[in-house]
Amino acid sequence: MGGDFAPLEIVKGSVDAARKYHCEIVLVGDEPQIRDVLKSTPDWEKLGITIHHTSEVIEMGEHPAEAVRKKKDASVVVATQLVKDGVCDAVLSAGSTGAAVTAAQFILKRIKGIGRPTIATPMPTPQGVTLLLDSGANVDTKPEHLVQSGIMGSIYAQYVFGIKAPKVGLLNIGEEETKGNEQAKATYELLKTVHTINFCGNAEGRDVPTGAFDVVICDGFVGNIVLKFAEGLAMTILGLLKDAIGHGGLLAKAGALFLMPTLRKLGKRLDVTEYGGAPLLGVNGVCIISHGSSKAKSICSAIGVADDYVEGKVLEHIHDTIVEEEQLAQAEEEAAKAAKKAAEAESAQD
Amino acid sequence: MGGDFAPLEIVKGSVDAARKYHCEIVLVGDEPQIRDVLKSTPDWEKLGITIHHTSEVIEMGEHPAEAVRKKKDASVVVATQLVKDGVCDAVLSAGSTGAAVTAAQFILKRIKGIGRPTIATPMPTPQGVTLLLDSGANVDTKPEHLVQSGIMGSIYAQYVFGIKAPKVGLLNIGEEETKGNEQAKATYELLKTVHTINFCGNAEGRDVPTGAFDVVICDGFVGNIVLKFAEGLAMTILGLLKDAIGHGGLLAKAGALFLMPTLRKLGKRLDVTEYGGAPLLGVNGVCIISHGSSKAKSICSAIGVADDYVEGKVLEHIHDTIVEEEQLAQAEEEAAKAAKKAAEAESAQD
Repeated sequence: MGGDFAPLEIVKGSVDAARKYHCEIVLVGDEPQIRDVLKSTPDWEKLGITIHHTSEVIEMGEHPAEAVRKKKDASVVVATQLVKDGVCDAVLSAGSTGAAVTAAQFILKRIKGIGRPTIATPMPTPQGVTLLLDSGANVDTKPEHLVQSGIMGSIYAQYVFGIKAPKVGLLNIGEEETKGNEQAKATYELLKTVHTINFCGNAEGRDVPTGAFDVVICDGFVGNIVLKFAEGLAMTILGLLKDAIGHGGLLAKAGALFLMPTLRKLGKRLDVTEYGGAPLLGVNGVCIISHGSSKAKSICSAIGVADDYVEGKVLEHIHDTIVEEEQLAQAEEEAAKAAKKAAEAESAQD
Repeated sequence: MGGDFAPLEIVKGSVDAARKYHCEIVLVGDEPQIRDVLKSTPDWEKLGITIHHTSEVIEMGEHPAEAVRKKKDASVVVATQLVKDGVCDAVLSAGSTGAAVTAAQFILKRIKGIGRPTIATPMPTPQGVTLLLDSGANVDTKPEHLVQSGIMGSIYAQYVFGIKAPKVGLLNIGEEETKGNEQAKATYELLKTVHTINFCGNAEGRDVPTGAFDVVICDGFVGNIVLKFAEGLAMTILGLLKDAIGHGGLLAKAGALFLMPTLRKLGKRLDVTEYGGAPLLGVNGVCIISHGSSKAKSICSAIGVADDYVEGKVLEHIHDTIVEEEQLAQAEEEAAKAAKKAAEAESAQD
């Protein structure tokens, strides 16, 4: 029921996904409205689609924590509970991001050892995609939580995008280790000691669109601003281009017409809706956040993302890696202690 | 001597500016190299151009504070000193931003009452330009210093861009007052009490390119990342477009050719080199930071910016406004105290 075009586009995208990915889909929301949209798909039940009726909706302006607590029968709350209960493998929402994140935190809980869940947004690049995280779940994030974002993002890039040893960068204002604010400098120090990721140093703003890194870590304050800036810039340039062609006379119009197939191909390459959804990493369950403006195509892609997320066993890998990282750090600490003791014993003998 | 194309493009841009703005220009740097470039402009002395020879250059990798302290005869140090001594009205550098900022802070000093100088970068929008500040001079900035950025940016937009009551926004992750990190929330509270600016609330990332505000305030960490992200995105899209047209067959090439005049006009509208320079606001002198990749056109525009900055008496306005703001705050405090006293006296009488 969430998003600018719900339930119409959400239902349409789900039908497409059921056909494309052969996955069972539970549509959680107002049954009469959903049935109305499904009228145009008489075989919906055969496709593996079911409806789970709910009576409430969390609106965009509501306070997420309050709304999730009060509205027990809100679609996002019930859908998340279905994952908790093992009825579903994943939950997807195009509604209030805050509500989806809060529901996931309250109901699914955090993965043991993870301090903060983060939203990982795939940003299109010439080579494919860069995962930017956190893109808005937490602000004033502690360095150790940013490090965990890096570990989770790296696992996601590996098992969902199929990238071996993903290049992980820390979003900062310069390449040098000494650059940045206190948060970035402390995070850099910690990242150097992590065993399970391929940390490649600081990423500057320009490295996000150029795709110099596979995973870029940042605080949710910075990530959200960058993400919305990119959206605004793309919209603005497109608007100006249309405007310029509209006022550009016959020659410009003919040129635009001739160029259209090329531009369309390029647009498809840069189209965020091809990726459709951003995973909320760090909770005990698969949760995908879609953009409020999502249409059927985005929703269908996002369900594909959820499918890859489940099939890739990302949750298990995150859990195992966090445990492994802790064990490695402990082993190192013990080895250092033993070495110190041995050195002391030796100097006592002298 | 600073910048990727110094001294060639810097000198060429200065010659253009001397012709265009009829201002006297002192070229500070290695005299033989500068004279070599000026060979193609036999009338350079008549244009009001002089050379001030210096023997040192601060390289991009050097630590700014150390370099400025050690290299007393570095071009950026000497040029800044010429402003301090009243020989010049403004200093312009396309070299190391850190070195230019440090030289300005050491030599020109901060305007009384200003805690941190900030770099104000004009970002192109469909309507004109949005001033983004701080775009990289300071990180971990205190709320009161962000407020001062807002005041200085507003004055600059008013007297250099000619905007009446510029709309000032605080870069944040949501429109609501309660959104954001601790720094943003504290800054919002302070901005509400400022008398001398037209504070219009939070600006989201998308509001920068769409031009919803005239002045957007942020920490230098966020500003620098946004700025470099925009550069990277513009570069990437342009590269992909060229590539797509190159591989797009005859039709695409013809289309591109037909569209070229329209695209060129649009490009000119969005071209940052039209603005050429970002003022360092908050120091006791006019200091303009140009991009390291600046060519003659950018340098010429930047000299125009310096000219507007001086003619607009921005420094005096900043000084006066800071004093006015302090006086207004003091008066308010005293009025509140007096009201409290009166109320106490009244209740004692009862």
